[in-house]
Amino acid sequence: MEKQSKLPSANLTKRRPFSSTLKSRLKDTFFPDDPFRSFSGESPSGRAWSIFAYFVPILEWGSSYQLSHFASDVLAGITITSLAIPQGISYAKLTDVSPIIGLYSSFAPPLVYAVFGSSSSLAVGTTAASSLLLASSIRDRVSPEADSEKYVYTVFTATFIAGVFQLALGIFRLGILVDFLSRSTITGFMGGTAVVIMLQQLKGMLGMEHFTSKTDLISVMRSVFSNRDEWKWQSALLGVAFLVVLLLTRRLKEKVPRLFWVNAITPLLVVVIGGVIAFLAKGEEHGIPVVGDLKKGLNPISISELQFNSPYISVTVKAGLVAGFLALAEGIAVGRSLALVKNEKTDGSKEMIAFGLMNIVGSFTSCYLTTGPFSKSAVNYNAGCRTPMSNVVMAVCMLLVLLLLAPLFKHTPLVALAAIITAAMLGLIEVHEVRRLFKLDKFDFCVCMAAFLGVVFVNMEVGLISSVALSVLRSLLHVARPATHKLGNVAGTELYRDVEQYPDSTTIPGVLILQLGSPIYFASASYLKERISRWAEEEENCTKEEGHDLQLILFEMSGVAAIDNSGIGMLFEVHRMLSKRNIRATLINPGLSVVEKLVASDFVDVVGKEWMFLSIGEALLGSRLALQEAKNHEEQV
Amino acid sequence: MEKQSKLPSANLTKRRPFSSTLKSRLKDTFFPDDPFRSFSGESPSGRAWSIFAYFVPILEWGSSYQLSHFASDVLAGITITSLAIPQGISYAKLTDVSPIIGLYSSFAPPLVYAVFGSSSSLAVGTTAASSLLLASSIRDRVSPEADSEKYVYTVFTATFIAGVFQLALGIFRLGILVDFLSRSTITGFMGGTAVVIMLQQLKGMLGMEHFTSKTDLISVMRSVFSNRDEWKWQSALLGVAFLVVLLLTRRLKEKVPRLFWVNAITPLLVVVIGGVIAFLAKGEEHGIPVVGDLKKGLNPISISELQFNSPYISVTVKAGLVAGFLALAEGIAVGRSLALVKNEKTDGSKEMIAFGLMNIVGSFTSCYLTTGPFSKSAVNYNAGCRTPMSNVVMAVCMLLVLLLLAPLFKHTPLVALAAIITAAMLGLIEVHEVRRLFKLDKFDFCVCMAAFLGVVFVNMEVGLISSVALSVLRSLLHVARPATHKLGNVAGTELYRDVEQYPDSTTIPGVLILQLGSPIYFASASYLKERISRWAEEEENCTKEEGHDLQLILFEMSGVAAIDNSGIGMLFEVHRMLSKRNIRATLINPGLSVVEKLVASDFVDVVGKEWMFLSIGEALLGSRLALQEAKNHEEQV
Repeated sequence: MEKQSKLPSANLTKRRPFSSTLKSRLKDTFFPDDPFRSFSGESPSGRAWSIFAYFVPILEWGSSYQLSHFASDVLAGITITSLAIPQGISYAKLTDVSPIIGLYSSFAPPLVYAVFGSSSSLAVGTTAASSLLLASSIRDRVSPEADSEKYVYTVFTATFIAGVFQLALGIFRLGILVDFLSRSTITGFMGGTAVVIMLQQLKGMLGMEHFTSKTDLISVMRSVFSNRDEWKWQSALLGVAFLVVLLLTRRLKEKVPRLFWVNAITPLLVVVIGGVIAFLAKGEEHGIPVVGDLKKGLNPISISELQFNSPYISVTVKAGLVAGFLALAEGIAVGRSLALVKNEKTDGSKEMIAFGLMNIVGSFTSCYLTTGPFSKSAVNYNAGCRTPMSNVVMAVCMLLVLLLLAPLFKHTPLVALAAIITAAMLGLIEVHEVRRLFKLDKFDFCVCMAAFLGVVFVNMEVGLISSVALSVLRSLLHVARPATHKLGNVAGTELYRDVEQYPDSTTIPGVLILQLGSPIYFASASYLKERISRWAEEEENCTKEEGHDLQLILFEMSGVAAIDNSGIGMLFEVHRMLSKRNIRATLINPGLSVVEKLVASDFVDVVGKEWMFLSIGEALLGSRLALQEAKNHEEQV
Repeated sequence: MEKQSKLPSANLTKRRPFSSTLKSRLKDTFFPDDPFRSFSGESPSGRAWSIFAYFVPILEWGSSYQLSHFASDVLAGITITSLAIPQGISYAKLTDVSPIIGLYSSFAPPLVYAVFGSSSSLAVGTTAASSLLLASSIRDRVSPEADSEKYVYTVFTATFIAGVFQLALGIFRLGILVDFLSRSTITGFMGGTAVVIMLQQLKGMLGMEHFTSKTDLISVMRSVFSNRDEWKWQSALLGVAFLVVLLLTRRLKEKVPRLFWVNAITPLLVVVIGGVIAFLAKGEEHGIPVVGDLKKGLNPISISELQFNSPYISVTVKAGLVAGFLALAEGIAVGRSLALVKNEKTDGSKEMIAFGLMNIVGSFTSCYLTTGPFSKSAVNYNAGCRTPMSNVVMAVCMLLVLLLLAPLFKHTPLVALAAIITAAMLGLIEVHEVRRLFKLDKFDFCVCMAAFLGVVFVNMEVGLISSVALSVLRSLLHVARPATHKLGNVAGTELYRDVEQYPDSTTIPGVLILQLGSPIYFASASYLKERISRWAEEEENCTKEEGHDLQLILFEMSGVAAIDNSGIGMLFEVHRMLSKRNIRATLINPGLSVVEKLVASDFVDVVGKEWMFLSIGEALLGSRLALQEAKNHEEQV
């Protein structure tokens, strides 16, 4: 006994008050990045100012802004404007709204982001996926052809709802929701969306007039081939030519990264050259439809036109929520990956607030849903931007375009836009990544394919939801069936490891060491009971053959992060079951949150404090002694 | 280097083929108890027979049935019949069907269970919760008063659907679904249901004629007090008297457990005495309503009356699914807990098949939803039953009752039934358990209260669903925010443990040891990245004050049971982030399934094989050597 008491044993006395546990749980759930930690040393007023400046980042970077930064930002701002014009016009066509609204959307929202946004490289703009999602949800109910004014205000209303949703998620720090979009889901969803958007471009590429409002492969193919008489070879020819140019410049960028700007301005060149060709050749009369009239002037105010009393409000809300969530996910992901490259910090929830405000203001000023698109932000980063000032520069450039140049774009051929979108979408299909997923993780591959096939064959919501549902199912399965491993002694060491992984490791006769998986929750409690009972039985059969009895089961609990009421109940039942078979249950290194519950539920008293150990080695030593003593005691009696 | 290569290192070569991983995952998910493991040594034909006998347990226990078993089973069978009569009549009233159907339901289903059921102590019968659930779902659409025939056939149809659902769950081995009903949910749900059912008994206790068809507290209270003129003091007096007797005998059982049979037959006595009183006092004329006419004879066949083409089929299906699921959960839980006491094995999926067949046959023979109720099964166990033969004995007794005695029960006063139900329900409210939950686990307490309050104030479905949703949310939160701990060296040992739990443990300057939680999935990947970066920053600040640099982070991964594609991506990003800060990332003891993915994704090559260790001690030694060597190399260059 002397020796045993000298052994360090599992700490069963440390206890945290409920309030502090709750506080740390809430902090880890909602403030994983602990944004205010650096302000803790300041005076109250200084702290209040720091926190205010934290939420309005322009106060932070603006106060130390230098002329050298400005030069870089101007260059980057001009570069992204050259991308913003063709993208704005193209994606507006995808949303079935006037192209000028695409240009408006690169004026007001970037200004808002420059004030509230924290990423120094993110460039604001519309994206193909959310544009199509908005259009495909709304145009079933409000026809953009029949009542274009009502349609466009419904789109603004959806944008407003998306903004409020994003703002609310940010304020309540629900960035955790975005975590449930896995990489695999995003890969599959983006790939599927790219295919669907390219299919939509067949209308522009072939110069067709009638087209389905559905997005799935089968409907689109049927629509394309049932109107073969509308196909125009002039459009197709021009489209293929543009596409080749766009793809060649991308190839150039891949080969010679410092020529990225050639690739960045090609879309604008395609628009300009296409416009000149269409103007000179009187394209409209020769099978090359063009964009049509564009008004000069700044964004009109649209706040009083939002359609809250419309009969389609439920569709509008749904479209706003789904598209807003998607836009958020893309923006956050872009912000995070650029921050990683620049080794900066990001606060997802703060970004959400910035996106939310940007879309609310946008919906008041004739802009539709914007976020931080991958392509534009990457160009911004490559062009050497230093601060969100590059967004301001883009807004100023766009102001000039809107006031002076907008009418010129009326000659833009639709086929040029189709070619620009198609080229952009081709870059989103990551075949290599899908192949890697198949090799690496079959379940992730299924998650990815669920998103892809759902988007391509049904619609974007179904693709997204089925993929997320599969991912969540996987998480639940993990919780319901935590792994248990039998451990053995690795030759030449005092270490105990999984016998399946280390086949040379040896077990000790009469002793079974089981590593329990985490967490021990209601969903896994009855499984674990069955599984432990099976392990015990198998071990008993083995040891019996060798002439021993199974005397001891060590439960190695280092990895068990949490246990709930059902889990505690399971431990009681397992202990009772093992006691009936004369097997001792012993716990190794239960963690703090587990120990708290073991003590509170009196499990420690039922099993006995002396059967809780800090390590396997100690448990083997300690329990041998205790078993021996119990035996001696029996013999004496 | 010599020394390092002698150290045992993490096994990175062991690989399992995908098919075997999949097989073991599927087995753990669907066959956690591995029911066929004992047959593996037999010949093919012997094995086929064993498997057949496994699914038809009567072949197993019937072949070794002995006369001594029979004596015990007859005694138990008669005891449970004495409970089955009053319970059958009472719960049938709760379902708004004729009392005789309650008696039918204790005839056919027990015979089916005796053939396919594997629990030796489970007694088949109707339960209060699923009776009320069926009634409250269906009577909103089909009125039991206006069209009683249609109503009763709709109930049979719901029973059929419940049976098919149970059978399907069993065949596809989806017992895992039942695992998602936690103990806390069941405690809250049963308590809430007990309250709601007692409220319904106010009708019978007060002898009222009009009553609400809703079940929530507020509707019932309004209904009771708005019809105060219907209250009958004779009923109330008799009801209270019966209730006192019933509660006293329960108290007797608690004090003197071997007198359990007094408690078991009291309900029958109450029915008989109540009937005699009502008959002698002409109760019906004096404010004591009675059950009314009951036909003599066996169950009529109802298979051709099932209502599949009714306009209420969607309600019927929903009622069948929810009630079937609940009944299943109760039956499985009863089977499991009795098996635990008797140290037998249970196979949840096999039980589901038995329940499903029993309800399908039941719906064909004028029985409604049955399962293995807690109360009846406990009496069966206490009465010393040995095999499912006790169910056969009960069925035979019920046959005699139906053929000979049924008409006698027409005098049973409704208030006697109300008292029996009320007394039974009082036993289901576990105040003690709720108090324990509050002490042990605040979240489990919330889960329990969600079920309780949902059932009492809204309805049974809402209570059940909100409680399960909360439990699932908890599981998802666990997956999204796995715990990370900083480890330190426990004084006087070579062990490294959580510094929060072991405050005396010491850290090593320049080295941070982090224990990562499980699993590393998409939902936790970006959280972990932020958290690790925060740990590293805090440690850097600490070590800088002491004049050191943070050189090394050890990720202790023993507890990480699974990692997915997003998790692997996170590791790459963390490694890159740390490399930029000149900090070495080192992995300790990654498990088999993690290693497989680390290798497949080339992470091992990026980090370097030499930075994967089997234990912390070895990592400290090994990485010191490697860092030293790298430094020497630099100096030489």
